[in-house]
Amino acid sequence: MVFDSDNAGPAHPAIMQALAAANSGYALPYGADDLMDAVRSRLREVFEAPNAEVHLVATGTAANALCLATLGQPWQAVLCTPMAHIHRDECNAPEFFTGGAKLLPVGAADKMTASQLAAALEALEPHGVHGAQRGPVSITQITELGQLYSCAEIAAIGQVAQQFAVPLHMDGARFANALVAQEGTAAAMTWKAGVRALSFGATKNGCLGVEAVLLFDACPAQSWEFELRRKRAAHLFSKHRYLSAQMLAYLRDDVWLHNARAANAAAARLAERLRQLPEIDFIAEPKANMIFFTAPRGLHQRLMAGGAQYLLWDATLEGDRDAPLIGRLVCDWSTPRENIDKFLALAQRVFTTSGTALTCQE
Amino acid sequence: MVFDSDNAGPAHPAIMQALAAANSGYALPYGADDLMDAVRSRLREVFEAPNAEVHLVATGTAANALCLATLGQPWQAVLCTPMAHIHRDECNAPEFFTGGAKLLPVGAADKMTASQLAAALEALEPHGVHGAQRGPVSITQITELGQLYSCAEIAAIGQVAQQFAVPLHMDGARFANALVAQEGTAAAMTWKAGVRALSFGATKNGCLGVEAVLLFDACPAQSWEFELRRKRAAHLFSKHRYLSAQMLAYLRDDVWLHNARAANAAAARLAERLRQLPEIDFIAEPKANMIFFTAPRGLHQRLMAGGAQYLLWDATLEGDRDAPLIGRLVCDWSTPRENIDKFLALAQRVFTTSGTALTCQE
Amino acid sequence: MVFDSDNAGPAHPAIMQALAAANSGYALPYGADDLMDAVRSRLREVFEAPNAEVHLVATGTAANALCLATLGQPWQAVLCTPMAHIHRDECNAPEFFTGGAKLLPVGAADKMTASQLAAALEALEPHGVHGAQRGPVSITQITELGQLYSCAEIAAIGQVAQQFAVPLHMDGARFANALVAQEGTAAAMTWKAGVRALSFGATKNGCLGVEAVLLFDACPAQSWEFELRRKRAAHLFSKHRYLSAQMLAYLRDDVWLHNARAANAAAARLAERLRQLPEIDFIAEPKANMIFFTAPRGLHQRLMAGGAQYLLWDATLEGDRDAPLIGRLVCDWSTPRENIDKFLALAQRVFTTSGTALTCQE
Amino acid sequence: MVFDSDNAGPAHPAIMQALAAANSGYALPYGADDLMDAVRSRLREVFEAPNAEVHLVATGTAANALCLATLGQPWQAVLCTPMAHIHRDECNAPEFFTGGAKLLPVGAADKMTASQLAAALEALEPHGVHGAQRGPVSITQITELGQLYSCAEIAAIGQVAQQFAVPLHMDGARFANALVAQEGTAAAMTWKAGVRALSFGATKNGCLGVEAVLLFDACPAQSWEFELRRKRAAHLFSKHRYLSAQMLAYLRDDVWLHNARAANAAAARLAERLRQLPEIDFIAEPKANMIFFTAPRGLHQRLMAGGAQYLLWDATLEGDRDAPLIGRLVCDWSTPRENIDKFLALAQRVFTTSGTALTCQE
Repeated sequence: MVFDSDNAGPAHPAIMQALAAANSGYALPYGADDLMDAVRSRLREVFEAPNAEVHLVATGTAANALCLATLGQPWQAVLCTPMAHIHRDECNAPEFFTGGAKLLPVGAADKMTASQLAAALEALEPHGVHGAQRGPVSITQITELGQLYSCAEIAAIGQVAQQFAVPLHMDGARFANALVAQEGTAAAMTWKAGVRALSFGATKNGCLGVEAVLLFDACPAQSWEFELRRKRAAHLFSKHRYLSAQMLAYLRDDVWLHNARAANAAAARLAERLRQLPEIDFIAEPKANMIFFTAPRGLHQRLMAGGAQYLLWDATLEGDRDAPLIGRLVCDWSTPRENIDKFLALAQRVFTTSGTALTCQE
Repeated sequence: MVFDSDNAGPAHPAIMQALAAANSGYALPYGADDLMDAVRSRLREVFEAPNAEVHLVATGTAANALCLATLGQPWQAVLCTPMAHIHRDECNAPEFFTGGAKLLPVGAADKMTASQLAAALEALEPHGVHGAQRGPVSITQITELGQLYSCAEIAAIGQVAQQFAVPLHMDGARFANALVAQEGTAAAMTWKAGVRALSFGATKNGCLGVEAVLLFDACPAQSWEFELRRKRAAHLFSKHRYLSAQMLAYLRDDVWLHNARAANAAAARLAERLRQLPEIDFIAEPKANMIFFTAPRGLHQRLMAGGAQYLLWDATLEGDRDAPLIGRLVCDWSTPRENIDKFLALAQRVFTTSGTALTCQE
Repeated sequence: MVFDSDNAGPAHPAIMQALAAANSGYALPYGADDLMDAVRSRLREVFEAPNAEVHLVATGTAANALCLATLGQPWQAVLCTPMAHIHRDECNAPEFFTGGAKLLPVGAADKMTASQLAAALEALEPHGVHGAQRGPVSITQITELGQLYSCAEIAAIGQVAQQFAVPLHMDGARFANALVAQEGTAAAMTWKAGVRALSFGATKNGCLGVEAVLLFDACPAQSWEFELRRKRAAHLFSKHRYLSAQMLAYLRDDVWLHNARAANAAAARLAERLRQLPEIDFIAEPKANMIFFTAPRGLHQRLMAGGAQYLLWDATLEGDRDAPLIGRLVCDWSTPRENIDKFLALAQRVFTTSGTALTCQE
Repeated sequence: MVFDSDNAGPAHPAIMQALAAANSGYALPYGADDLMDAVRSRLREVFEAPNAEVHLVATGTAANALCLATLGQPWQAVLCTPMAHIHRDECNAPEFFTGGAKLLPVGAADKMTASQLAAALEALEPHGVHGAQRGPVSITQITELGQLYSCAEIAAIGQVAQQFAVPLHMDGARFANALVAQEGTAAAMTWKAGVRALSFGATKNGCLGVEAVLLFDACPAQSWEFELRRKRAAHLFSKHRYLSAQMLAYLRDDVWLHNARAANAAAARLAERLRQLPEIDFIAEPKANMIFFTAPRGLHQRLMAGGAQYLLWDATLEGDRDAPLIGRLVCDWSTPRENIDKFLALAQRVFTTSGTALTCQE
């Protein structure tokens, strides 16, 4: 009953086969492999962006931090939500890669609105040379709490970014999960809405470790700067073909969409039944492959004692048993149906007895 | 009627005389001058800290950023208020000097409380290697909005810092103004309360450009690291004697305390009379040499049209005339009595007629 | 006839099988996978270093740059040869990761001697706070030109490093090739000789992309610093098991030693026959899996026209036909015997006719 | 008998008077002072460069490091001589300010030639994304060993820089000393010869601490970048008028040229007589205000025992008495005639007796 994260799951068989197929004879290193040409073409096709610059790295943090460094300057602010992965979960990687830019939270939730963004950018105005300058905006799709930006919402944010002449980045660690969860094409969700750079995640959705960066409006100089930054950050792979092979297989036969649909469907099944339990509360309606629910710590303790594995959000298992804690359940492409049913059975047992028998059961 | 900032005023005559006196013959460069020995002794005496390490730089931002870099690590958070000078007014200098640490706002005001700090440090716990690590705490005395930390408040913050094993830094750009405004010695306000590093400002209080850094618990290696960081940041002066001479004169004959008392008294006089005007509102009780007051933009426009000079806080002069804006009035050691009286007369004229005659007067 | 680099070859079947085997069910992410425990144990065993700290990354540049950043300080010099990969081929990654340390060439060749190192460290003395401070020493085994440091040579360098109280790092991108090429154990070549941190390469010797870092004398704080630096540099893999699986398979059944022996033997076969040709000249006696030979550009042109692939060292194929250029031939574990023989046949043809028929053959 | 450095001397009276004169009433801070307007105009006039961007800082290292950071990129090499101040004497400040660029020595002396530069830039070519990229060139006028670049030599270097599309920086810490020592205007020595950015030193030539940066071809965006970098590096002075006042007085009434002539004349007088002594040897013909001479350590010991103060170049006073060491004698605008004569008398005494009486005199 593992629901820790979509990075705990295995790679999809198609990806593994592609790796094996790529493992034959010699290939030009450092991104000059033939497979990379195919990756580039395929991603341009998927995104309807024939001029997009495409680069591969192996971690999402690398994709994000390299994008932000290429889009911004060290004396600027990077605007993101207080929940953003780049702000909370990357150990200051964006600050490192940008040479010391300041991450500035917009709003108080894990989705920003266009008007919150406008206000935050406006507030950076009066400081002249003294304050952090206006810099890149970064949004996460799907968000850290599993929520979606609609294409319209992104376009509104993109318009504000354009109005203030700052570039818009999207952390798409779970881009596929977002794409299959709502209306809209890959293009509509990105460059048509003003996104200038996308971290296109694949690791969490069935690969071993590969992420693409798409620069939509990049001049050749900016793309070359990205390449230099990637090399300087030690993220250029010599045996690059193994990144290319993963990404190519990921995009072939809609593996990426199938995987995302499977993950979302698993989470939907889980959510559907969980919401019928008393005392459980979703902090927001689950939209893709993640569920955040509130329950007293005592219930979390019993779920985990029963074999469930998932994250407590900003909290530890020990402590006041009545304190309401948020649990995060994540499904990936491989989440077995029986795990879901087993977890649901456990949850039902735990929740329905919780009112009366909390103490004696332990 | 200049009330822009205490950095707009002239240097005190005693400082100028000391510069002239120091300007004779040869002196060892780079901090090896004899005057520096005297500075070191005098500051140790003032702070009752015979082992304090003392270094001079020429700007407050240098003092702050070098302290934070020496106390912390690039992968840490620096905890400060959202109003802190290091966060809002130094163009990412702390991020630059620390190699990319993250400035993390504590609370919502320009003073943090010990319990807010504890909560913020606590919240950094569960992230393991992923989030920014706990790092230096920085408080400003007097604060950016002219408020005071009492020695007890500092000690409470210092205790939290110690409990979480993080160092406490004080941005004392206006340290003297704080010291003369309340009970307590220089020692009580700093190392006795847990402050590990102090930016001891002098520029705003009658010098041309000099700030001392005091490291209270530094081992020799840490002090040497500070020196290397200072040199590497191009803040080691070859003709260092002119920094030493300023600082020595500043501390001699209590020039620093006299200057601070003069600045605070000027602000008190101003505040005393301003508070009697209708429609004016102090956002907090003025404690030292700065006054923050709210008034409709229209009144600010008329004050400035009448010759008053001061800052609007996060706002511009143009715009909706009824919008309430914060104005900042700062006095320094040199603020002439007649300027205050002239301003008060102007204010009285503007404020008492504001209700009826706003339009026709322009 | 590909002799470009050992990073152009495929991964060894045992590595691919291990990847497939690891791809089952859930695994704890970020280095908490069970396989990593086995990697740690195995490497400690191989190096007879039960307390060594072990971490995995995916590129050699990451291993090197993270080691140097952990061992040194931004205001220090990193001492290496002018040919060092960290100096010439990593696009300033060491400068980036260290926060701006200065790479200082020692000697003029691709091997430094203990006495050259001592002189270079000595020369850093008189500068006080002004010059770069003494910092980490880094040597490459095997060197960029395919040469070996004997254990005694390393120990002599290690002694100098210890005498000047600076740490010694080894870039072991081709560590296995060195180990099987001469007397001495893994321990004797590293920590017993004073090496404090090792970049233990695996990518070039049969893996897809994995390198181990061994910190031999690290206190827990230093190892933790390494982990924070790795995460901050975006080099911590979420699906870490795929790094672990590669490294474990690499060490199992002596795959790493067999591969290195195969690569070295292929190069030896090549060298043996090449040296019999006229007009060819090895710039140094080949010791492991790389051969550097000098020949007029015209001959290089004809070899490549004949289908040979290899690097020209600091030169391009176009230009004066008589200019002597260095060619680099690299063998890896997979270099087919027929490629070698084909290349030798081609070389024989080209070289024996070169005197008379250079023009007409083209 | 102090000949340590031109940074050990006092400020010129005209500078001190200007400081005093500037110390009246309020002035706009952060470079918005009226005096700065005058500085800007005057420097543009002096350099016949009506569009030059002008900024002030307080240290030469700040001027240099900010110029290099503005002109270059972190992944580039900065080309300078192995003796360059930026390479040997700034504790990695250029590396820090540039975000990790690599300082690459050109040639082996303290002057580079155009052809050495061309070769060094050429050598950076074949590395693609792997090596440091071509970046700014920096030359020092007068050089660290007191030598001059003629305008023609600078122009030749400038031409190479232009050919390789890299910017040329001049460290003019002793620019005035160079200007009065040879034919040529300030313009001819800089922008007319291809210099894009100049660190225009004043501190060593009679000021307390001020240097101007001139950006000759800067677009507004680049000049603004410089300002942001200056602020971020904590080198923007709040009480900026005291920098402006120094620089203005320095340029008024040709104070700067008079001072430089005085310093050069003092050195010439010294050199003239020293060269008549036996056993003394100039490592190069003195051209401006610095003399480098070789003598056995024993003689240096006796000169210093006799009261002379000057630097030993890369050496210490203790050691083998026969070892030939380089001594550096520097004159500044204030060097008293009697000091020179006293030193000459001492030198004559020491040198003429050195052959016979070395031992007994001690």
